[in-house]
Amino acid sequence: MADNSLPLVTDPGARTATRRDRLRAVAVEADLDAIIISNLVNVRYLTGFTGSNAALLVRPNGADVLATDGRYTTQARAQAPDLEIVIERACAPALAGLAARNGALRLGYESHVVTIDGLAHLQSAMAGLGSGTEPVSIHAAVETLRAIKDGSEIEALRAACGIADRALASLIADGGLRAGRTEREVGRDLDNRMLSLGAEAVSFETIVAAGANSAIPHHRPDEAVLAGGDFVKLDFGATYAGYHSDMTRTFVLGAPAAWQRDIYDLVATSQRLGREALTVGAAVVDVDAAARTPIVEAGHGPAFTHGLGHGVGLEIHEAPGLSALGAGKLEADMVVTVEPGVYLPGRGGVRIEDTLVVGTDGPDLLTLTSKELVAL
Amino acid sequence: MADNSLPLVTDPGARTATRRDRLRAVAVEADLDAIIISNLVNVRYLTGFTGSNAALLVRPNGADVLATDGRYTTQARAQAPDLEIVIERACAPALAGLAARNGALRLGYESHVVTIDGLAHLQSAMAGLGSGTEPVSIHAAVETLRAIKDGSEIEALRAACGIADRALASLIADGGLRAGRTEREVGRDLDNRMLSLGAEAVSFETIVAAGANSAIPHHRPDEAVLAGGDFVKLDFGATYAGYHSDMTRTFVLGAPAAWQRDIYDLVATSQRLGREALTVGAAVVDVDAAARTPIVEAGHGPAFTHGLGHGVGLEIHEAPGLSALGAGKLEADMVVTVEPGVYLPGRGGVRIEDTLVVGTDGPDLLTLTSKELVAL
Repeated sequence: MADNSLPLVTDPGARTATRRDRLRAVAVEADLDAIIISNLVNVRYLTGFTGSNAALLVRPNGADVLATDGRYTTQARAQAPDLEIVIERACAPALAGLAARNGALRLGYESHVVTIDGLAHLQSAMAGLGSGTEPVSIHAAVETLRAIKDGSEIEALRAACGIADRALASLIADGGLRAGRTEREVGRDLDNRMLSLGAEAVSFETIVAAGANSAIPHHRPDEAVLAGGDFVKLDFGATYAGYHSDMTRTFVLGAPAAWQRDIYDLVATSQRLGREALTVGAAVVDVDAAARTPIVEAGHGPAFTHGLGHGVGLEIHEAPGLSALGAGKLEADMVVTVEPGVYLPGRGGVRIEDTLVVGTDGPDLLTLTSKELVAL
Repeated sequence: MADNSLPLVTDPGARTATRRDRLRAVAVEADLDAIIISNLVNVRYLTGFTGSNAALLVRPNGADVLATDGRYTTQARAQAPDLEIVIERACAPALAGLAARNGALRLGYESHVVTIDGLAHLQSAMAGLGSGTEPVSIHAAVETLRAIKDGSEIEALRAACGIADRALASLIADGGLRAGRTEREVGRDLDNRMLSLGAEAVSFETIVAAGANSAIPHHRPDEAVLAGGDFVKLDFGATYAGYHSDMTRTFVLGAPAAWQRDIYDLVATSQRLGREALTVGAAVVDVDAAARTPIVEAGHGPAFTHGLGHGVGLEIHEAPGLSALGAGKLEADMVVTVEPGVYLPGRGGVRIEDTLVVGTDGPDLLTLTSKELVAL
């Protein structure tokens, strides 16, 4: 049963119309006659439609069209009642043909999503129609819009993170994190608790990594048995109303050894510095550096093998990326993870991760589970 | 705990080497100097590597190279011990640069997977190296190889289907399919039974559709409560060793009404005719027609809104497609679903689906659950 304290999603039509208007402004600025959206997550963001085959035509005059196939006729009408709906298996080509027949000369498309073959299909659907429609890349325009969350999105993310917090608390309270269980058993237990607390699904395959496995950043839970003295790293999340939470905590089964306490404290310090660097206007490379510096200074730089964090929303990984290779600056209402880690092959590793909203008054922490070193 | 009767995966190195040799033959035939594989599922098929960022370079001389990023160094060495491994975040561009430096002039790539931006990245990685490397589409060459399963793949599919069969049998035996439960409760119960029986994961989000919801071909389980007289449609599967099962059964809670028996019998007849049409050399459009004809003749043609079936393997939907729009003929050791349905909006719907291996002695049924109309 869903927890009744979770927020309800209301007024989706007005929200998605506002988002399409923002994309329309992109179309006008780039002198485009229409835009075809092929990325299904972007279609959902702009329309509310959640089917597995769809494309969206956004036009400057506001006469937007959603295409999907016959399996989803009823669902499309229910989820996107404000849109004209075209039923056609080849969604994007159908919309390209429609745009070309209506005289579009410059047709925006998502060049990071559309494949070489997909563009050929669009072009053949337009051939002979209109007067020579030209495809023009809009790059990741919708992903850029999606990086800044609106109020309803932040509430969905807060609800998703709350589910994950409560699931972990109940796992620990019930003694679910104990020597003798396998990684898989712990992972399934945690997943079921999230689903019982109202998660639609898990955000990604839950990582449970015990002992030496904790040194593998993205270990898949297996039949390894948790043992006293082990680090146990849990990286997991819940989805709620389509939005993903993402949190990592690392525990020790029994009293921590000195080396475990040392790398835990180092990662915790790094993670705190990373959170403190989340300010509006900060360059993402500087946020990464703020967290990375203490790890490098402690001589563990090569053991921090990934970026500091990433945006979270309708996808588990989205813009902005917080890493040394990232670009751009943080803006208010971006939602990101901060997740440094140190991994010592053959011994064990620690990662500590929160999901936070960037804001002018400092970050708003969505994952509330304690980050003190807990010995179970 | 995994069921010990499930087959173990053995000797993966020799199998993946054989598959790469088949792709090498494609390279030689198309006069290619190397091929870059970007589709992660294809990388897994050809190497055994299961990480979330990778690309593979296949070369005529056999010196194949797997690229992945720093998170997966250990895993790549363990899963693909027979391959040279390059650690680089931008995997495909790194391999394109390597191929160009080694003098490749015609570089095969997957034009149905590589995006417009992705091809630009490959080209810029090759710029100034070698003497003008030209990207050449190999289209879906690996998916074509994957359509014919080898013995180990068929055993993995059989194990996956067996898990689904046993999970459904135990759900029914324990009275889990009963009036008063919600669709979501039934779905989670079935999922947990598959996981307890050794599934790595569920093949896709389990469909539980009760009453009028059963008329929605791809209904997501919600808080709808199962009631006496309802059709209850379950479409679900388990993955085992990466391979997916897919099965649909439709039940009636209580004594079936005449209209329910009528459409159930119609769909069951259609499904039997579809299975009987699965012969080596049959055109996929003829298989679809064999199952579709009785439904059309009964006046329900427009209520069968989707194709008859699809290949199943490392992906839940793969080649070949069995539909009126499909192309090609069935070959031995293809594994496909046969899943006709009739959906009466507002009333209810029936779909019956099996997964089968195409063979010279007739199809080998992998999903063994009875297709008799069961009134619960």
